[in-house]
Amino acid sequence: MSTFDEMTKEELTTLKSALTEEYATYCAQELSLNMARGKPGKDQLDLSMPMLDVLPSSTDCVAEDGTDLRNYGVVDGLPEAKALMASMLDDAPENVIVFGNSSLNIMYDTLMRCWVFGTLGSTPWSQLDSVKFVCPVPGYDRHFGVTEAFGIEMVPVAMNEDGPDMDAVEELVANDSAFKGIWCVPKYSNPGGVTYSDEIVKRLASMKCAAEDFRIFWDNAYTVHHLYDEPENQDQLLDIAQACAEAGNPNRYFKFASTSKVTFPGAGIAALAASAENVAEIKKRMGVQTIGHDKINQKRHVLFLKDAQGIADHMAKHAAILRPKFALVDKMLEEGLAGTGCGTWSKPRGGYFVSFDAPEGTAKRIVSLAKEAGVTMTGAGATYPLKNDPHDSNIRIAPTLPPLEELEAAMKVFVCCVKLATVEKLLEA
Amino acid sequence: MSTFDEMTKEELTTLKSALTEEYATYCAQELSLNMARGKPGKDQLDLSMPMLDVLPSSTDCVAEDGTDLRNYGVVDGLPEAKALMASMLDDAPENVIVFGNSSLNIMYDTLMRCWVFGTLGSTPWSQLDSVKFVCPVPGYDRHFGVTEAFGIEMVPVAMNEDGPDMDAVEELVANDSAFKGIWCVPKYSNPGGVTYSDEIVKRLASMKCAAEDFRIFWDNAYTVHHLYDEPENQDQLLDIAQACAEAGNPNRYFKFASTSKVTFPGAGIAALAASAENVAEIKKRMGVQTIGHDKINQKRHVLFLKDAQGIADHMAKHAAILRPKFALVDKMLEEGLAGTGCGTWSKPRGGYFVSFDAPEGTAKRIVSLAKEAGVTMTGAGATYPLKNDPHDSNIRIAPTLPPLEELEAAMKVFVCCVKLATVEKLLEA
Repeated sequence: MSTFDEMTKEELTTLKSALTEEYATYCAQELSLNMARGKPGKDQLDLSMPMLDVLPSSTDCVAEDGTDLRNYGVVDGLPEAKALMASMLDDAPENVIVFGNSSLNIMYDTLMRCWVFGTLGSTPWSQLDSVKFVCPVPGYDRHFGVTEAFGIEMVPVAMNEDGPDMDAVEELVANDSAFKGIWCVPKYSNPGGVTYSDEIVKRLASMKCAAEDFRIFWDNAYTVHHLYDEPENQDQLLDIAQACAEAGNPNRYFKFASTSKVTFPGAGIAALAASAENVAEIKKRMGVQTIGHDKINQKRHVLFLKDAQGIADHMAKHAAILRPKFALVDKMLEEGLAGTGCGTWSKPRGGYFVSFDAPEGTAKRIVSLAKEAGVTMTGAGATYPLKNDPHDSNIRIAPTLPPLEELEAAMKVFVCCVKLATVEKLLEA
Repeated sequence: MSTFDEMTKEELTTLKSALTEEYATYCAQELSLNMARGKPGKDQLDLSMPMLDVLPSSTDCVAEDGTDLRNYGVVDGLPEAKALMASMLDDAPENVIVFGNSSLNIMYDTLMRCWVFGTLGSTPWSQLDSVKFVCPVPGYDRHFGVTEAFGIEMVPVAMNEDGPDMDAVEELVANDSAFKGIWCVPKYSNPGGVTYSDEIVKRLASMKCAAEDFRIFWDNAYTVHHLYDEPENQDQLLDIAQACAEAGNPNRYFKFASTSKVTFPGAGIAALAASAENVAEIKKRMGVQTIGHDKINQKRHVLFLKDAQGIADHMAKHAAILRPKFALVDKMLEEGLAGTGCGTWSKPRGGYFVSFDAPEGTAKRIVSLAKEAGVTMTGAGATYPLKNDPHDSNIRIAPTLPPLEELEAAMKVFVCCVKLATVEKLLEA
């Protein structure tokens, strides 16, 4: 089989007819399938149902230090919840603050604090003429949404197989004090599934920054979200806190994690870890904002997940559900597209996404074709700041929500759309 | 009995000896009692324990519209949770947004949005040379803490028996566009227990504001928190939304309420109601900040409290616990202080506080004496912006947390401290 771009116009026209016919059969099925967001499937959610029953009576509603979980107080989280989340954040409990259900909310509020109040005595970012963030691409659309909301200029740098292009990052932040931060999903990245190498982590920690208040927003969203149980098939990430401390930049990072994809996306707990100085400042500020987050739900998590081993055991159950889905996506892409030149895709060992790179200038068309056939994908361009993928190429596949049979149906449609859009593009040329 | 200020120096000296002796007996008891914060007592928290069991299985974890409560989404709250909270907010469900566990957090974030982004097209407050808030005093210390954090100038106006001194409020806001808001606890106010009269609500809604983006922060924290069951013994509050709409200022208010003192302070749900325009803008902005709040907990509240009648029935149980505590406080103040001229105090029909006005210049000393004797009160001055009570007179009594016998012990100490501090002051003169 020749790649599509080696075909003659006649061959492409014939192929287009066949693909158009196939596409019409999908449209006729009136499908309603969704591969848009990184949402766990129902069977994954069922894994955590026992968590709702771990506090059967009022005598259980007491923290280890005697605090009544139901009443006001404990702004920075229960000690036992800090210990649990510290294990996810690779950090010590005293560096952890536990919040409500959303790490996105913590990231937004953390940026907001820097924006309005500044951090550790530096000028509030809102008072600067220009604020810029480094944005490894493809990346997480909601990160870009936050910086966009503040009017922060987002400068993309490429993601390589071991993390962001550090030559580019270093060049930017060393020479322009407007650069105040970088968005990172350092393990099983969204969407590429990349885990930063030790060298990349060390370069981020030690690089020269023109802005002394430069901050790494380290969204370790998938830290325990392996697809395979064998340690040799699991990615390992160097701790950014340790690396920053060793490099003499102990305040450079904010780490974030949550149980959104461990227990319940809508009713998990989220946490931040940072240096002692950063934590002290954040606690002071957040003490004005709230009297404390939901301690009952924090305790539920502690009783249900217990510790790092408990989390690992629980995540293995998630992995058992997710492995076949990722395998199916890879198999169908392989069977449908291998040798066609119609795209390349990631083969992640964890996380929630497969990153698909279609031929330049076809991503929007592919997503639009899929949508018309009843298959909702993440919008093309969403993985770039301002939804602007300069190559109109990257598409994020989120295979976790649909049951296997629906996923198969959706991927059939997707593969057909990829081929059809590619043929259309080649015929235009 | 003569009032203390009619006594001779000799009489006061004799009285001081007796009070000092009484005070010493309290100190010797090594008490540890707390009347500092408006926290429900343990027996109140026990009332809501059945709420933790209303979702026994995964088939129950579904919203009325079919949404899986456990997964991501529904940024503005479940429809049934909006309906429930609408009943507390005197509003229509479509004007309501349901959040996480803290109305303080909503108020902070609401002010933050005005600060950073402006509201409905107006200049962000952070970009103005001067921003001022009207602060009825005595008031809620955490409100003042929020405006203080932003560096907003807080201008106190007196609270009368029917609400803020509106002549003063109108004078301020009509002539100075730096005034952007007013803090209000309009029903069973913190700490005075005052409910705004219809006339006051209408004047707030219709007053001329130099700033077109002036906002009433209407913290209806005690809307269903009556102490008496008979309707004629319950305060009624005119709806600010209706009043603002009728006055042609439909966007002037943000209403807040929560179930913190209905179910669990640490694990309740909080909500905001506002005009359609305000709600649309808030939803747009908060969609960047979070994917949604804890819908499982929202549903728990719906299933447990059901509706306005369910809330009223539940609050009657709280009232049955709280009435004897408020009665005891009043009785002990009456028995200990009537006719002495050592203070006046509120007799609220709802809410969480008794406001005590001690003789000028004695509040700090009273609270300090009580503290040394093992009775923690809210700090003197806390009911004023920047903790600055110009008369050093107002003390907030929070009688809800201690069991009755502890409350009695604490009030004995308090009464003694009031008298001792007053005698000390008179002897100084």
